[in-house]
Amino acid sequence: MRVCRRSGDAVVKVKVGVIGGSGYTGLELLRLLLSHPAVEIEAVTSRRHKGKRVDEVNPHLKPFADIEYEDVSVREIARRCDVVFTAVPHGVAMDYVPELLENGVKVIDLSADYRLSCEEYERIYKKRHKDEQFREGLRHAVYGLTELHAEDIADAELVANPGCYPTGAILAVAPLVRARKVKCVVFDAKSGISGGGVEPSQRSHFPNLAENIIPYEVTTHRHTAEIRKELKVSVHFTPHVIPAIRGILTTAHVFLRESISEDEIYEIYRQFYDGKKFIRILNEVPSLQNVRGTNFCDIWFEVERGASVGEGGGVGSRADKVKEEGEVEKNSRVVVISAIDNLVKGGAGQAIQNMNVMFNLREETGLWFPALFP
Amino acid sequence: MRVCRRSGDAVVKVKVGVIGGSGYTGLELLRLLLSHPAVEIEAVTSRRHKGKRVDEVNPHLKPFADIEYEDVSVREIARRCDVVFTAVPHGVAMDYVPELLENGVKVIDLSADYRLSCEEYERIYKKRHKDEQFREGLRHAVYGLTELHAEDIADAELVANPGCYPTGAILAVAPLVRARKVKCVVFDAKSGISGGGVEPSQRSHFPNLAENIIPYEVTTHRHTAEIRKELKVSVHFTPHVIPAIRGILTTAHVFLRESISEDEIYEIYRQFYDGKKFIRILNEVPSLQNVRGTNFCDIWFEVERGASVGEGGGVGSRADKVKEEGEVEKNSRVVVISAIDNLVKGGAGQAIQNMNVMFNLREETGLWFPALFP
Amino acid sequence: MRVCRRSGDAVVKVKVGVIGGSGYTGLELLRLLLSHPAVEIEAVTSRRHKGKRVDEVNPHLKPFADIEYEDVSVREIARRCDVVFTAVPHGVAMDYVPELLENGVKVIDLSADYRLSCEEYERIYKKRHKDEQFREGLRHAVYGLTELHAEDIADAELVANPGCYPTGAILAVAPLVRARKVKCVVFDAKSGISGGGVEPSQRSHFPNLAENIIPYEVTTHRHTAEIRKELKVSVHFTPHVIPAIRGILTTAHVFLRESISEDEIYEIYRQFYDGKKFIRILNEVPSLQNVRGTNFCDIWFEVERGASVGEGGGVGSRADKVKEEGEVEKNSRVVVISAIDNLVKGGAGQAIQNMNVMFNLREETGLWFPALFP
Amino acid sequence: MRVCRRSGDAVVKVKVGVIGGSGYTGLELLRLLLSHPAVEIEAVTSRRHKGKRVDEVNPHLKPFADIEYEDVSVREIARRCDVVFTAVPHGVAMDYVPELLENGVKVIDLSADYRLSCEEYERIYKKRHKDEQFREGLRHAVYGLTELHAEDIADAELVANPGCYPTGAILAVAPLVRARKVKCVVFDAKSGISGGGVEPSQRSHFPNLAENIIPYEVTTHRHTAEIRKELKVSVHFTPHVIPAIRGILTTAHVFLRESISEDEIYEIYRQFYDGKKFIRILNEVPSLQNVRGTNFCDIWFEVERGASVGEGGGVGSRADKVKEEGEVEKNSRVVVISAIDNLVKGGAGQAIQNMNVMFNLREETGLWFPALFP
Repeated sequence: MRVCRRSGDAVVKVKVGVIGGSGYTGLELLRLLLSHPAVEIEAVTSRRHKGKRVDEVNPHLKPFADIEYEDVSVREIARRCDVVFTAVPHGVAMDYVPELLENGVKVIDLSADYRLSCEEYERIYKKRHKDEQFREGLRHAVYGLTELHAEDIADAELVANPGCYPTGAILAVAPLVRARKVKCVVFDAKSGISGGGVEPSQRSHFPNLAENIIPYEVTTHRHTAEIRKELKVSVHFTPHVIPAIRGILTTAHVFLRESISEDEIYEIYRQFYDGKKFIRILNEVPSLQNVRGTNFCDIWFEVERGASVGEGGGVGSRADKVKEEGEVEKNSRVVVISAIDNLVKGGAGQAIQNMNVMFNLREETGLWFPALFP
Repeated sequence: MRVCRRSGDAVVKVKVGVIGGSGYTGLELLRLLLSHPAVEIEAVTSRRHKGKRVDEVNPHLKPFADIEYEDVSVREIARRCDVVFTAVPHGVAMDYVPELLENGVKVIDLSADYRLSCEEYERIYKKRHKDEQFREGLRHAVYGLTELHAEDIADAELVANPGCYPTGAILAVAPLVRARKVKCVVFDAKSGISGGGVEPSQRSHFPNLAENIIPYEVTTHRHTAEIRKELKVSVHFTPHVIPAIRGILTTAHVFLRESISEDEIYEIYRQFYDGKKFIRILNEVPSLQNVRGTNFCDIWFEVERGASVGEGGGVGSRADKVKEEGEVEKNSRVVVISAIDNLVKGGAGQAIQNMNVMFNLREETGLWFPALFP
Repeated sequence: MRVCRRSGDAVVKVKVGVIGGSGYTGLELLRLLLSHPAVEIEAVTSRRHKGKRVDEVNPHLKPFADIEYEDVSVREIARRCDVVFTAVPHGVAMDYVPELLENGVKVIDLSADYRLSCEEYERIYKKRHKDEQFREGLRHAVYGLTELHAEDIADAELVANPGCYPTGAILAVAPLVRARKVKCVVFDAKSGISGGGVEPSQRSHFPNLAENIIPYEVTTHRHTAEIRKELKVSVHFTPHVIPAIRGILTTAHVFLRESISEDEIYEIYRQFYDGKKFIRILNEVPSLQNVRGTNFCDIWFEVERGASVGEGGGVGSRADKVKEEGEVEKNSRVVVISAIDNLVKGGAGQAIQNMNVMFNLREETGLWFPALFP
Repeated sequence: MRVCRRSGDAVVKVKVGVIGGSGYTGLELLRLLLSHPAVEIEAVTSRRHKGKRVDEVNPHLKPFADIEYEDVSVREIARRCDVVFTAVPHGVAMDYVPELLENGVKVIDLSADYRLSCEEYERIYKKRHKDEQFREGLRHAVYGLTELHAEDIADAELVANPGCYPTGAILAVAPLVRARKVKCVVFDAKSGISGGGVEPSQRSHFPNLAENIIPYEVTTHRHTAEIRKELKVSVHFTPHVIPAIRGILTTAHVFLRESISEDEIYEIYRQFYDGKKFIRILNEVPSLQNVRGTNFCDIWFEVERGASVGEGGGVGSRADKVKEEGEVEKNSRVVVISAIDNLVKGGAGQAIQNMNVMFNLREETGLWFPALFP
């Protein structure tokens, strides 16, 4: 039987495979899995580096990753592993997932291929979904935001690991949304460039990003659909790339249905995330330096006290005063800020957190360490 | 007579003084004034550096600033100058401005002391305003956002130069506000750290800012009042410091009163800023690298096409669907992004632009050069 | 008895104290010690934060560091601990070390107080050494460069943990020096700013360091003495601060006594560092990203093939040709480059490595993990 | 007649062309030439952007560069221009230079094609030189380090503009070399990444360069030949890329033939650079922020006072003490540090400085402005 259990002192280790082990997400999976006490890495694939030692190509893993990149069949990977992480671009994962599942392996897919309904996927990613079972509604993936769906994840065969932005955005406001307090959220997200991958691009070109901040897909980013699907409230999402390697800071401008005090909000968050070890509700503004390299999501909020329009001789004429329509009621707006490491909680770390849940390990196994500060 | 006019080939130069010439704003004034063809610098004050040559203390100005820092009386400065820039912290400018004005000198104040009404100033900056004339409504300052108030500036004795954030924020949305299209704006601003001044602080400490982005005064920044006073619509403002030296990128999430097309918006902006040489309406997302060191404000916008709530089994239950209340109508939200150099258009450059207007010079005199790219 | 031993499955943990737990070095000690499987933290001192929880002051350690900062007597610390790390500025450690040792505790001093002979210390640090035993030669400290002095460290009561720069510099060239190949070395070192500490300064002020590189104490840095003491060859050392948080890259320009091939050099290094797990001899140029957060020292070298003077009509006249005197023989110069994390191998990590040796633990205990890449 | 002369108030402008106007060097030429009071830009070529407006492709030049990129014949360019800047990769310039010269145009070549003798070029750049006149010694280029060769430049038809590294390196030590004081120099150079060009690469990929410093071509960089040709002393050169956009800081570790005082050195530099307006001898360590965007070369030096080998029980045994052989005499080593902007003094700015000299304009015309600080 494949499930890993503790039996006395001995641990039956989970046998894992990584499809796509040379990108930032794949490498981060390896970094974390190599230190994971209940895991055995059985296969790492890379077409480009096939036949080379992982730590020859990636000196930072020397001498830990004494493994060879392979380009083997899905069937062979399935034979060796209990669970496979697919760390490949969207549109590619769907080539591997059906066969993996059919061979009895659990799959944690880090691509976007199984995060949305088939219809929405095809509309947003503008390509036909090749997994026929998924098309016909016979294949079901659990959305792997561990703090929200742990029960379903425990029983899942296929987990769709969330996108980096949705992780930071959804965790920031889920308690308020679930408490039916939220009318509308503007997510203004700021990400390190590692989310863009290992391949150099105009955006990652140092002279273009240093001393800059780059907004992109300002109203059209595909992660918006993922956020909306989970939150089911009015959501606006604008991402920016900042001159940093890791981390996403999400500033959630939340319009509330009614006035609410900071104490009430705190209580809502405290209860919602009770027992969730990777959520830290802070007393001060989150900082990427406190989550660097970790699986934590730090959250903080501040209610805006009063938001009256100005007076005097400015741009808008007197007739523009719009208290009736647009004016926000006192205390009916809160800014929630979350900070995550995009490659850990926003990617590889959360995938391993999900694996832990799927294999009945403690959720924080292999992920329980403080940030690299400063 | 003090007004500068071209008479034949000869130019009567404007005699200028800078009170507070050792901070970033003061130094930027000097950098720009030293290359200004119609200006003569007559006095630069600094208590700390009194008696030292400006370019001894600031090697980047060598050998241009062959001037001595002084600590002379306001009366003496007034005697030498046609116009004085006060580049001192808020609360300090009001010590100089009344006497300067009484001695017949024009003043461009780069502090916050004269930007708001006296009442609002005292409420927001939490200190008594010491200028009795201003308290009693006998002293009037023109808000120096040149593109909006050039006519008043031309006749002003006292110009309150705008804050860096308000400059980027107001210019981004003024055309839409003036056209009565705007219900509410969420300004999410990202600034280089030079706005924080020359003195080292925890926020400017490299290990704290590098690889990070720091939100601060998330719902309480004092520039909010300045923005509201000018725009007179519902305004929310959250600033962040990014790991960059110069520049402010402002992401304005604008909720419109009605649906509007991008072509219409473009036309509104084109007309509003017609003839304004420092406003560039771009076809692509603004970049701090295109305004670095310049007085330009680059603007771009994108209408959000449809913003329906998601479906499926997420956090919010079905009952949370709030189309009636919170849902945003198709095309009724636009994101406007502006980019400025905080020390130039957001400070010293705009101050000189105002001086040009006040002394009947062409607005772009001494400010007409491209950005330092890359 | 205090020595830690494995007895069956159970591990008698080493009881450690940290004097000076709020600076970067102290915090890095805590970060690493908190994950160390054979350690129990018994005391952390900080005058400033006395009475506060460590992870309240340092959110990145939440919830790991459920410890209180104390300001207790040396005697009390000694009572609780087997070993104490003194992570305080030079000149301060000597206030604690004698009493700690007299109370039977082992000490690993991360300051400069015991790295040099008393005479040299007083000459270079320009202050009287307060430890009378040390003055009189009755107190002996072992220089804690683990790879070079492991045997002495194993028996030491007092270890003087090396400076960050000397660690990178000495490890880079020790094999060649020991093999008597070296005539002279110019060390040109580039460090992240975290070496400068948690307090903001002009040098750490973001606008001064970003887009810059700052040379300092160009011929007079105090670490030079430490390097010379260990290497005993002609040493020149010039440090620079780069716009990075962590890491030191040392470029060692080595003038050899005789021509030598890269193969020979490789063999010298291989043998010298045989079995040293934290030394990685690379095939490619070292990168700070491969050692970030780790205790590794990556080393690489390249022999300069031929170094003839130029010809033609340049600055130096024909008579300046100096083949006899200054000319370097073919293959008699090698550039060795090393990369370390200044806070780990250059500080807290090496200190723990030394503790492991002193307590008969495997050298890599608690330090065996790959770098945070990218 | 082509030479530009001032005749009364009117200025006959120099007609310039830029071949290769879309790279960083070409764009920097345009930025500077657009503000140059005695220049008219007559042609800018780019194959990729042919037919597009320069400021459409490069928003930072809007609305200054109302010029169209062309892909016209060399003959046509020659017809329009007095002088042409070739800002193309090495190996390409030689395709244009002969025909330009034959058509009576002066050429300032910013590539490496004419900096070395033909033989050395072919050996170092590993390609055949296609300019037959140059091969046969019938074409002569003047090395365009303006401070050293102004007289020859004034009469030159073809100027080989120096490489960025050689500019910073040669200017740092030329006075000492010319005074025959220098035995050997180790240049350890640190450059911003813009020297690598506009195309994204692994080296310019933000996650690889941020928080890092990258040594490359450690003993084999091709600029070494250029430095040696000019200095004619023993030269070692190792370049690094730092996480910065612009600037080169060169640390020159100079071994002197004899002891020399700082006062003597200062006098040597003062005399050598007397009247050279772009050389600033500083009293403090140079900083890239003081030269950003300018044509200045800032220089500073420090004599090492004594450099004795250490004592005690280190790596080298007593027999390794090598006072006789390797030891450096007191005061016989000096570290000289220079700072330039690689794209200005190290490229486009120096090219324009050379143009000014060639056309009998004041050397600083169009280049006389302070740095963008901070």
